[in-house]
Formats: sequence, C-alpha cells, structure tokens
Amino acid sequence: MHSHLFWLAPAAAVVALYFARRFFKAMIREDEGTPLMRKIAAHVREGAMAYLRQQYKTVAIFFAALTVFFAYLSYGVDLQNNWVPFAFLTGGFFSALAGYFGMKTATLASARAAHAARDSLDASLKIAFRSGAVMGLVVVGLGLLDISVWFIILNWLLEEADPLHKMVLITTTMLTFGMGASLQALFARVGGGIFTKAADVGADLVGKIEAGIPEDDPRNPAAIADNVGDNVGDVAGMGADLYESFCGSILATAALGAAAFMKQGDPALQFKAIIAPMLIAAVGTLISIGGVYLVKVKRGADQKALLNALGLGVNSSSLGVILIAPLLLWLLGLPNLWGIWGAMVTGLVVGTLIGKITEYYTSSGFKPTQAIAASAKTGPATVIISGIATGMISTAVPVLAVVVGTILAFGFAAQFQMNALAEGLYGVGMAAVGMLSTLGITLATDAFGPIADNAGGNAEMAGLPPEVRQRTDALDSLGNTTAATGKGFAIGSAALTALVLLASYLEEIRVAIIHALKQGQSYTFPNGQTISAAREAMDLSLAQFMTFYEVHLMNPLVLVGLFLGSMAALLFCGLTMTAVGRAAGRMVDEVRRQFKEIPGILTGEGEPDYARCVEISTKGAQREMILPSIIAVLLPALVGLIFGVAGVFGLLAGGLSTGFVVAVFMSNAGGAWDNAKKYVEEGNLGGKGSKAHRATIIGDTVGDPFKDTSGPSLNILIKLMTMVAIVTAGLSVSFSIF
Amino acid sequence: MHSHLFWLAPAAAVVALYFARRFFKAMIREDEGTPLMRKIAAHVREGAMAYLRQQYKTVAIFFAALTVFFAYLSYGVDLQNNWVPFAFLTGGFFSALAGYFGMKTATLASARAAHAARDSLDASLKIAFRSGAVMGLVVVGLGLLDISVWFIILNWLLEEADPLHKMVLITTTMLTFGMGASLQALFARVGGGIFTKAADVGADLVGKIEAGIPEDDPRNPAAIADNVGDNVGDVAGMGADLYESFCGSILATAALGAAAFMKQGDPALQFKAIIAPMLIAAVGTLISIGGVYLVKVKRGADQKALLNALGLGVNSSSLGVILIAPLLLWLLGLPNLWGIWGAMVTGLVVGTLIGKITEYYTSSGFKPTQAIAASAKTGPATVIISGIATGMISTAVPVLAVVVGTILAFGFAAQFQMNALAEGLYGVGMAAVGMLSTLGITLATDAFGPIADNAGGNAEMAGLPPEVRQRTDALDSLGNTTAATGKGFAIGSAALTALVLLASYLEEIRVAIIHALKQGQSYTFPNGQTISAAREAMDLSLAQFMTFYEVHLMNPLVLVGLFLGSMAALLFCGLTMTAVGRAAGRMVDEVRRQFKEIPGILTGEGEPDYARCVEISTKGAQREMILPSIIAVLLPALVGLIFGVAGVFGLLAGGLSTGFVVAVFMSNAGGAWDNAKKYVEEGNLGGKGSKAHRATIIGDTVGDPFKDTSGPSLNILIKLMTMVAIVTAGLSVSFSIF
Repeated sequence: MHSHLFWLAPAAAVVALYFARRFFKAMIREDEGTPLMRKIAAHVREGAMAYLRQQYKTVAIFFAALTVFFAYLSYGVDLQNNWVPFAFLTGGFFSALAGYFGMKTATLASARAAHAARDSLDASLKIAFRSGAVMGLVVVGLGLLDISVWFIILNWLLEEADPLHKMVLITTTMLTFGMGASLQALFARVGGGIFTKAADVGADLVGKIEAGIPEDDPRNPAAIADNVGDNVGDVAGMGADLYESFCGSILATAALGAAAFMKQGDPALQFKAIIAPMLIAAVGTLISIGGVYLVKVKRGADQKALLNALGLGVNSSSLGVILIAPLLLWLLGLPNLWGIWGAMVTGLVVGTLIGKITEYYTSSGFKPTQAIAASAKTGPATVIISGIATGMISTAVPVLAVVVGTILAFGFAAQFQMNALAEGLYGVGMAAVGMLSTLGITLATDAFGPIADNAGGNAEMAGLPPEVRQRTDALDSLGNTTAATGKGFAIGSAALTALVLLASYLEEIRVAIIHALKQGQSYTFPNGQTISAAREAMDLSLAQFMTFYEVHLMNPLVLVGLFLGSMAALLFCGLTMTAVGRAAGRMVDEVRRQFKEIPGILTGEGEPDYARCVEISTKGAQREMILPSIIAVLLPALVGLIFGVAGVFGLLAGGLSTGFVVAVFMSNAGGAWDNAKKYVEEGNLGGKGSKAHRATIIGDTVGDPFKDTSGPSLNILIKLMTMVAIVTAGLSVSFSIF
Repeated sequence: MHSHLFWLAPAAAVVALYFARRFFKAMIREDEGTPLMRKIAAHVREGAMAYLRQQYKTVAIFFAALTVFFAYLSYGVDLQNNWVPFAFLTGGFFSALAGYFGMKTATLASARAAHAARDSLDASLKIAFRSGAVMGLVVVGLGLLDISVWFIILNWLLEEADPLHKMVLITTTMLTFGMGASLQALFARVGGGIFTKAADVGADLVGKIEAGIPEDDPRNPAAIADNVGDNVGDVAGMGADLYESFCGSILATAALGAAAFMKQGDPALQFKAIIAPMLIAAVGTLISIGGVYLVKVKRGADQKALLNALGLGVNSSSLGVILIAPLLLWLLGLPNLWGIWGAMVTGLVVGTLIGKITEYYTSSGFKPTQAIAASAKTGPATVIISGIATGMISTAVPVLAVVVGTILAFGFAAQFQMNALAEGLYGVGMAAVGMLSTLGITLATDAFGPIADNAGGNAEMAGLPPEVRQRTDALDSLGNTTAATGKGFAIGSAALTALVLLASYLEEIRVAIIHALKQGQSYTFPNGQTISAAREAMDLSLAQFMTFYEVHLMNPLVLVGLFLGSMAALLFCGLTMTAVGRAAGRMVDEVRRQFKEIPGILTGEGEPDYARCVEISTKGAQREMILPSIIAVLLPALVGLIFGVAGVFGLLAGGLSTGFVVAVFMSNAGGAWDNAKKYVEEGNLGGKGSKAHRATIIGDTVGDPFKDTSGPSLNILIKLMTMVAIVTAGLSVSFSIF
C-alpha cells in the first residue's frame, strides 16, 4: 500500500505545474492595454530579465566553484558519497527555474492587471492573484518534483546492502540538494533586496525629494528600476526563500524519519516515515489549488471583501489539510497517527498565529503603529526610537509561539517522552511541513502584492485615469497586509526548519563517521569514546552523539560557537544594510547625472535612460552581495574545521536564536514604519506634507533595508549556515583542530 | 603561609577606602567658586540626592519582598541554607553605599573642577580625575571588604563537618551576595539610564529646539535635571554595574575554584584556589592606587597630553598586575602557576583590546564615524541606517576577542586539556578577574567624564568666561573617549563574568541536590540517573551534570530556552527604550508648562522650578524601571520552574550571547552617532547649523537611549538572569515541571 502512496508526491507536483501553466495561459490571453502600457511593461520585463541573467551568471560562478569543491570532497579525498555535487547543483537549478517562471509571470501580469482595473477591481484581483498563484504553484511543484525524482533515482542507483542504512544515505544525500536551494535563495534574497532598495531609495531621494516629481513618474530615470526591484525582491527573493524552506523542511523531516524509525529494524516502517512529509506536502499542494479558486469577489467589492476573499482561500486550504491529513496518515499506516497529526496542526496554527501577530504590530489599524505615527509629532528621532522599540518588543509573542509550538509538536510526536529525541524532533519537522503544506496559496497571497504594485506603477506612468490607480492602490494596500503576514510566515517556517536541520546535521555526521570507518580502523570522539564498526555508528542515539561530541552548554567550544553565531546574525545585517547604502548612492549619482545631461527630461520631451539605472542597480546588487554571502558560506566550514562538531552546533544554535529574533525585529520595525507613514498620509496627524509626515518618511526610508533586505536575508542565513554545516560535515569529522 | 595571604584582601580593601577618603578630603578643601557656582552645584547635588533617596525607597520594597521570599525558601520550605537572605541583602546594601559615595563625591567635585579650570587645565583634571578615583576605589574597596568579611563570617559560623563541602557551601552562599549587587545594579542602570535620557531629551527638545536657548542655559527648567542625569546615569549606574562585575567575577571564580580543586581531596589546595581571585583583585587594587598618582599633566598641556596621562596611569597599573601576579601566585603555591597567570593576562589583554576597538568604531578620528557623518549629506535616514549598520558590524571584532580570549584562558588554565572543564572555566574566571583587577583606576577614568561634563554645565550656567568652558570641554571630550572605552570594558567583563557564572550555577545546583538529599531518600535526574548519597553529588563532574540534566543542544528544552534568552535581550531593550520615550514626553510637557506659566522665565527674570523637573524625571524613572526589572527577575525563575535546569541553561546562554552582541551594537552605534555630530560641529561637512548638522543631531538623539539606557542595561541583564537562576536553583531542582 504505502509504496503506491509515494506516487502522490510526483503526481501532486505535476498537477501543480499543470495548474500553474493553466493560470499562466489564462493571464496571457488578457489584454495588455494601450501601446504605452505595453511599452512600459516591456521595459520592466526586460529590466527584470536582464537582472536575472546577470544574477544567474554571478551565481553560476559560485556554484561552479562549490561544485568543484564538493566533487573534490567526494572523489578526491573521499569524504562523502558521489551524489553530493549533483544533488547540490539541481537544488540551485530548480530554485533558479522557479524564480525565472515567477518573475516572468509577474512582469507579464502587471500591465494586464492595470488594464483590467480600468474595468473593475475584481477583474484586476483575479489576474494579479492567479499570477501570484503561478509563482506559488511553480515553487511547490518544482520542489516536490525535484524531491520525488531524486528519491527515485537514488533509490535505484545508490549501492548499499543494508536497506535501513541505504535510506539514511539517500535522505542525507538529498539534504545537499537543500544546500543548493539555500545558496540560490541567499543570492536571490540578498541581491534582490539590495537591488530593490537601491532603486527605491535612489528614485525617492532624487526624484521625489530633489526634483519634486511624484512616485512612478515616467520622467524619473529610476522609475523602471524601482518597478523591476519589486519583482526581483518580493517575487523572486521571497519565492526562493520559501522554496528553500519548503524543500528544507521536507528533506530534514525525511532524514530524521529515516533515523528515528531505524531502530525498529523495519524497512517498511522507515519508508513510511520518510515519505510522510512528502505526502503531507503533496496533499496540501492539491488542496491549495482548490483554495485558489475560492478567491473571488463580486463586482464593486470593497477592500474588506478582498481581504475576506483571500482569507477564505488560505483558511479553507489549512482546514482542508487538517481534515484530510488523518486519513492520509491512516492509509500510510504510520504509528502514533494522532501525535503526528497534532504536531502538523501545531505548525499550521503557529504559522497563522505569527502572521496575525505580525499584522498587529505592523498594520496601521492597531495601536503600535499608530503610536509610532503619534511620536512623529516630536520629530524623526522619536519616530526612529519608537519604531525600533516596537520592533524589539514585537519579538516576544512570536518567540513564545515558536516555543510553545516546538514543545507541543515535540511532545505530541514523542508522546510526551521528552527523552525520545528523534521521534520528538520528527514531530517538530512535521510542524514545519504542516506550516508550509499550503505554500501554494500562501505564496500566491504574497506574490500578488508586487504585481498589484507594478500595475499601479504602470497605470501611473501610462497616464491612466485616477480611478484605475485607486483600484490598483486598493490591491497594493491589500498586498502590503498579506506581505506582512507572509514575512512572519517566512520567518516562522525558517526557524522551525532550521531547528529540524540541526538534527539532520547529526544524521550527516553519522554518515560521515560511517564513511570514515570504511577507510580507517576506528573513530574516536572528542570525549575519548572509540567505535570501530559501522553498526555502532548506526545505533548511536542523538543523545549519545551529544555526549560523545560534548555538545553541552558548559563546553567552551559550544559557548564560543554561540557567540560567533549571534555575531554572524548582526554582522550579516550590518553588511547588507551598508550594501544598500552604497548601491543607493551610485543610483543617486546616476539619476542626478541624467537630469543634468539629458536635455528635456523633466519636461517630458527627452526620454530617460531607464536601462542604465537598471544596470547600475543590477551591478551594485551583484557586487555587494558577494561579501555577506562568502561569510555565510565560509563561517560554518571554518568553525567546523577549527572547533569541530561542538563549535558548529554552538554556531548554528546561536545564529538561529539570535537570527530569528533579529529578523522578527527588523521586519516588524520596517513594516510598522511603512504603515505609520501611510497612516499619516491617510490624513491623520496633519496628513500629507505636514511635519509629522516628513518625520514618518524618514522612518519609512530607514525601514526599507530593515524589512526588505536585512531582515528577510536572515531567514536564509539561519538555514544556509546549517546547510553548509551539513555538506561539510565530513570535514569537521575528519580534520577539526579541537 | 597561604592563610596569612588571605588577609591581603581585607587589607587592600581598607587601603583603597583610606585613599578614597584622602582624595575626597583633598577635593573638599578646594574652592567651590562664586556664590552662583555654589548655588548651582547645590541644586544638582540636592537633585541627585533626592533621586537616590527615591530610588533607594523603591528598591527597598523590591529587596524586602525578595528577602521575604528567600527567607521562605531558606526557613519555610528549606530549599537552601539560612545565610542566603542575609548575603543577598548586604550585596544590595554595599552596592547602594558605593553609589551614594560616588554620587556625593561627583556632585561635590563639579563646581570645584569648574573653578579650578579658571586657573588651568591640569588643576581641573586633577580634581575631576581624583574625584573619579574616589568612585573607583570605593567600589573596589567595598567589594573586597564585603567579600572578605562574608568569607570570614561564614568560615566561622557555617556548620558543616566535611571541610571540602564546607568551602563549596561558603562560596555558593557568597554568590547570592552577588544577586543583591546585581539587582541593585539593574535598578541603578535602568533607572539612571531612563532619568538621564528623559532629562536630556526633554531639555533638548523644548529648550534647544523650541525655545532656541543653548545647552546648559540656566533659563531651561530641565538644565539641572540634565546635569543630575549625568551623575545618576554615568556615575551611579556605571559604578553599580562594575561593582557587580567585580564582585561577581571574584565570587564565581572562587566558587569554581572550590569545586575544581575538590577532587584532589586537599582542603589547603582548595582554599588556595578560592582566595586566588581575591588576592589578584587585592593586588590590582593596590597597584591602581599608585596608578592614580601617575595621572598628571604639566601646565598648559593639550588634549593629547591629557589622554597620554590617563593612558600612562591605566597601562602602568595593568603592567604592574601582570608583573606582580606570578610572585603572588608563587607565594600562594597554586599549581599550574603560569597557566593561571596566562589566563589572567589574557583577560587584561582582551579588556584593553575591546576598549581600543570601541574607540575605533566610535571616535571621530576614525573612518567608521566619519562615514556616518558623511552620510548626513543625504539626510537623517542615511545617518540612521549607516549608524545601525556600523554598530552591527562593530560586533565582529569584540566577539572574536572574547572567543579567542575564552579559548586561550580556558586552554592555559586546563593545560589545553579541553575536557578539563572545571579547571578551564576557573581560568576563564581568572581572565575576568584579571580584566577587572585594575578597576580602581579604570573606573576613575570613566567617572571623571560626567564630573567634567557637570563642571562645564556649572561654568555655563554661572556665566564663567568662555576659556573656562573651553577647558572643561577639553576634559569632557576626553571623558567621552574614555567613556567609550569604559563601556566596551564593562560589556567585555560582563560577558566573561556571565560565562563563569554559568558554571557557578551548576555548583549551586550541586548544593541544592545535596540539600534535597538530606530530606529525601534519593534524587533522580531528568535522564533517569538516580543518586542517593551526598557524596555522589559531591563527586559529579560538570560534564556529568550536563549529561544527567541533558543540557545539550538537541534537547528541545534547551533550544526553547535559547530562543527565550535571545528574546529577553531584545524585549528588555525595547521596553527600556519605550520607557525613555514616555519619561521624556512627561519632561517635555513640564518644560513647556513652565515656559508658559512662569513669567519672565525666558528673559532670565523668573526662576524656573528646577526641582520639579528633577522630580518628574525621578518619578518617571522609578515608574518605568519596574516592568523591565520584573521581567529580568521573573523570567529565569519561571523558566526554571517550567523547563528545569536544561531550560534555564538555554535561557542564560541565549541571553548571554544575544545580549552581548546587542549591547555592543547599541553602545557603539550610540557612541558613533554622538561623535559623528561632534565631527560635524568641529566644522566638517558644513559645520554647525548646516543641513548635515541637523541630520547628525537626529542620529545623536536616537543614539542616546541606545548607548546610555538600553545597551548598558543589557550588561546587567545577562548577569542578573544568571544570578536569579543561581538563587532559585533549589526551585528548579525540586519543583520543575519538565
């Protein structure tokens, strides 16, 4: 029975990709509007594609270098199995492919959504939302497909006599596929984040403030780059981030399942535990497609109705997964059905909860953001102070949610035997998988925001009547709300995924030890314990690993690692913020140059050189993303080489806990500043042009890199550092100094 | 031999207090200047004393409640020994006493320093610096005295047959004295930090910006409160902070020494290990007194000469300790002399290094601060972004310094047996003690800053000629440099002290288990291990504790604790920043009211109601410090009750690593903004009144609560949480849920 069930995963992948194609075709059939609208959309599309081409070129160099390195580890010094370099490569390739499709769809959809808005809000919503769903479905479809195909290939080709160990080998090899996705995501988030904010700040500082022309004015040379930025940051960046979380959570849970259900000695049981997370994700994906069809509004619906429509789609999908999962788990025949189900539901609830909390702290409808706006009466300094304070305070409830969620998910799956580490952590993995199972639709609610934003930009630049802009603004504002929720969701899922990846790291260490034992006579742990047979390594429990590697909080190597992890989070934020500043500076210079050198640009007679601005932002992003990325990749490898497994664990745990709270802080502070400005613009506290407004604009500008560059990049950092540790596990096992 | 050496500690305490009194008397003999100067100084003094009275009243309620609670734990449910409540009380009392003397001296010295500045810079420096030395020597004198006296009393009165266990009991009981000092320090730092910034921001926002009168103008009703604030924040707050680090590092190292040198079964050896940190501190104290005499400049010396003079005093003291310590350790006869010495020297070097790095990142003489100033060309938003980015990046080197320092100190003391936890951690303790051994003089270089600042305020308000203000400004600016170094030093020592306190927590757990065994039959650890004899608990190694309590990084309780610890650091920062905002708001209202209601106040004919402003700031500080303090005290106790020892360890480690990096970030960002403003005021980038200047003023205002309230309060938080865990160890041993 169970082996047939596996085929649900590739089937769901194919269905998701089919519907993605269907939504895409339907969107393409819509009218793209006037020639001017088409021309503007083409500019944005070309800019976005130019960016992607450049981005993928840079990334390819990195991937080539790392593939050679991993090939050396596999074939040269024989530290790991021979599939690692290939798995790594495909992870990066499929993530890049998802980014390409998502961007292409988004940039094709914006003018069509703008054109539809001339007719009605609901027509425009449909185009924007279903185009967002293309991104969502491509991400989960390609993710599930890649996972399924690798599982089939490795099952077929990997040679290992012991069936239980074979599954451990397969699942840990597949984890390195996650490293590829993770590295691609890092570049997408960091590069995209730098691009979008450099263009945004550049356009605002010179266009809005110095030249006094409105936002999205076609006379502004950076206007196109600004619109391109929304796509590369919020569509491609967010997509790659969640692609990685989606795959990472499934792969990590599968690896844990392989280990947790090995001791019973029953290959069939182990197999069930491995495919369970894939199946949950598959069911969630199928349900999400149904959910997409639930999102529709009547003609003349107001903003509240729009929000309700989105809520209906997302919540029905979650409920569907909750209701169908027991049936699926029953069919699969996994023991402790309700415990696993409870863990999964916990994840979905925590995800929703973090989203709601994020909304509370960042929406202008609630007290915290209004208080930030009110502090604008005493000037920009108090806006900044209260925004930072609010962001910091806003970390409390999300952390409590993750804490309670982790304990519950662990407890449910381990039947409240807190010593049953492998079973409990498998439950935490199921919570992450549950949270991400409806990604097909939650990512759609996220990706439609920038499409609506671009539709507004298109309408403005093409000189469409004001009611069109009003409609796209309504969609855009809705997108801002869902974006805040989506950010909370992305952070929460990253935290849970990283927690489970920590455990997978140990599985990778186990494989590395077994690999080392094949070459040497015996392996000695740092505490002096020696083993000499692969069987012994297979039988080690997670708790024994912790004791033998001395991964306890009194070991100076662990404590030192913790400090380094916390530092890595802050250093990474600081570097990405500086990068935005530098890239924005170059954009400012270019826009000023064009205003001075191109005749008639401000009267609308001369055409600005949009492409040059896109190029500047692209080059700036490419140049600036190198240093933070190198640090993220090198640090875990270096700590592993110097301080060994104990140090790496400290680094990952410190990076995870500090990175998580700092990411929440930065995203929420940035979101709150953004909406505090909008709150004033709605006519409160003196409205547009008032002193308070100017103060909130400063807050918003500070918040831009907080919420769109540094904060979201931390999601990747905490996962990527663990992924690097996983892939270089063999190095710390065989060569570490301490 | 060795038991006689112990008397060096109380003797050094008495000598330090004698010289403090001598410097105080010499200062009092100086002329306090014109009647107006005396009157202003009296206002500030009365304000400061009024604040202290109110502060001590509030704190007394807290202390009373906790003493009752600890008495209940000691006598009611018999969870700990009967000395705990008394030790707790004296810790708080002596810290308060040090604060009182320091404040009294500082407020008496400022007018005298201003008067001396009419004559020459060197005369003024001597008064200000030696008054700062009063604070430094009172802190180390009272600290050493309290430690020595308790050691004698407990040695005499505590009843325990086994001499080795007796020493463990004594040293762990004395740790609770540290909890008293820690709680007092929390209130001093948080309350003082809120007071000083509420007054500062209030005075600036209404006085400087709205009414357009200069800083320290006597027409500003908040001018006196502003000067009071410098004293309560930078003198009393900093003093209490370092009093706690000084005592905490000695006590924690002594407790570790008692445990580490127990297994040899030689009470004499154990005794040596216990008194070694006290003796190092005693020698450092005596040498520091000599160092104070080295700080002098010739008539007509410039600022560079001043800085060199301070450097000579501090560096000679450090060198003195480094040279004399081997002799001392040889006399004491502690094994591994050079290892212990190496650990101690490592601490001194790390402290100096962190100070230098802090200076690099915050002084206007270096690139980072100049770059922040340069970003003012594009307005306040870029000033804020680059300041935050710089602050975050500036965490890298201090963390590396602490990492390398910890590994080296551990390695030296453990003779590079990384498994010898107790010996190695004893070395880390010695590093902290080494770093703080010259506190007598390093605190003097810190405390003289606010005295010089107040001298400047006095000169301004008393209408002294401009050259006087120039001289006090030169001193003040010197004070700002040393304050930055001092802050780095305070954070570095807090981190090392907290690391060692983590290990002491385990010693307290050991004592609690033995205590529990006296009442019950046996004690079962979370991993199922059961012991039934006190002897077994005595013999447990630190690594065994970690295994039995499952304090490893795969335990969900530890991971959950880590998240809570990281969250606590950010929540605490957020709350204290909000508190400053609210307290400043009340001050703004009061100053506005006085300008409106008191006739002739702006023409200088009506006298402002200074006392009312002091009262408002005092009340605001008292009201606002309650919530963050309650969280800091309750969190470790609650986590202990719910998640047990594993959860507490996670909480403390997470709070420590995140708290440390965030403290460095906030202090450095604040310091850099402050000096970026000064850099512009020196005539760069358009100078005073330019657009760039206005942008840097906004940065400076944001930085105020960063560097003077939230950042420094984190130093206390990371130590206090551990102290609370130590004192409530019995609760988690006997009652925890998990």
